[in-house]
Amino acid sequence: MITLYHCQAARSFRALWMLEELGLPYELKMLPFPPRVFAKEYLAINPLGTVPLMIDGGTRMTESSGICHYFGTRHGPTPLVVGVDEPGYGDYLNWMFFSDATLTFPQTLVLRYSQLEPEERRSPQVAADYAKWFLGRLRAVEAATGQAETLCAGRFTAADVVNGYALRLAELIGLGKEFGPNVAAYWARLQQRDGYRRAVAAEDQAGAVHSSFLSLLTP
Amino acid sequence: MITLYHCQAARSFRALWMLEELGLPYELKMLPFPPRVFAKEYLAINPLGTVPLMIDGGTRMTESSGICHYFGTRHGPTPLVVGVDEPGYGDYLNWMFFSDATLTFPQTLVLRYSQLEPEERRSPQVAADYAKWFLGRLRAVEAATGQAETLCAGRFTAADVVNGYALRLAELIGLGKEFGPNVAAYWARLQQRDGYRRAVAAEDQAGAVHSSFLSLLTP
Repeated sequence: MITLYHCQAARSFRALWMLEELGLPYELKMLPFPPRVFAKEYLAINPLGTVPLMIDGGTRMTESSGICHYFGTRHGPTPLVVGVDEPGYGDYLNWMFFSDATLTFPQTLVLRYSQLEPEERRSPQVAADYAKWFLGRLRAVEAATGQAETLCAGRFTAADVVNGYALRLAELIGLGKEFGPNVAAYWARLQQRDGYRRAVAAEDQAGAVHSSFLSLLTP
Repeated sequence: MITLYHCQAARSFRALWMLEELGLPYELKMLPFPPRVFAKEYLAINPLGTVPLMIDGGTRMTESSGICHYFGTRHGPTPLVVGVDEPGYGDYLNWMFFSDATLTFPQTLVLRYSQLEPEERRSPQVAADYAKWFLGRLRAVEAATGQAETLCAGRFTAADVVNGYALRLAELIGLGKEFGPNVAAYWARLQQRDGYRRAVAAEDQAGAVHSSFLSLLTP
């Protein structure tokens, strides 16, 4: 049985969504945000204090996009992963790594220095610098989704799950209004998927009693 | 023939090092830093303006850690990649994604807001926040390298290449003095590798005429 530690709407949502797309059985453990403050006992399980933590037998992983690739390869075969010998393999891998290193980290800076930090530690300049960075990198998604329904390989894959989450986060923190037309249409399509909806329902059901970073956002 | 666009000591060094470890033939194209300012013609080749850009036939990739995994899987088999059915597979994948999303991005903030930005845009607070972040995450490397010579799977792999680069960057920007004893010893071992030395020699030879971000660092 796969165990997933998750905070509502955090990056661990990628792993939850991928589990729902694959139809794998799992146990979801919801944590309040941030766990290092509100669930100190979690530090004994994951010293980094971060989510996700995914445990699958002897395997422990903390990187959300890596976990999605792991699920698809270790518990495959599945069309959600692009095979090494397919023409779209490099493109798929690039999107897998792009999703967090390039597209999500800048958003965490916007969130941190515009909303999460106490007033005296906020930095409108840094938040603006990384909103600009994020939107610059998002042009790659705008270009790709202008040519096809999905990011790569001519079908829905884990690359859409992991980058789709970055769009969910962008919308939550107020960057969604900057989406180009292709990104906006792509994000609307992703939200129609049964797997996405099941993942949102699972976290809503399991997380109702917990605070999340969403409750810290300026209305 | 594989083509790699690279700036001295930038993240693209991961791909260069991996090519040398694998012994694959490649063409190295050095660019001055930052290319979006000093090599505007590069924007026609890579609209993001970032390095690396790796071209291999019809495959184009821009994510440095993803490129290393691509080389090892598409141009393997090689012991530098951990196979899906090996016990260390999830651990390996986690380190591959950790290297850039978790360990390198915070360093770019330290560099940017302590040294690269003009004086009036610098932020000692943000630089300190992300130096602290980097060192917190580095504890995972300190723990792993206290138990084994390499990060995972009981052998040298692409995970050591991509995280080893993060240590190189840390040393270059002045964070090396904060390394714990295991990380310091691990980093010393990595620098002894023939593949690492060949990669450094290749960029020194090819890049001698170009400026790099190193020239912008405070002595």
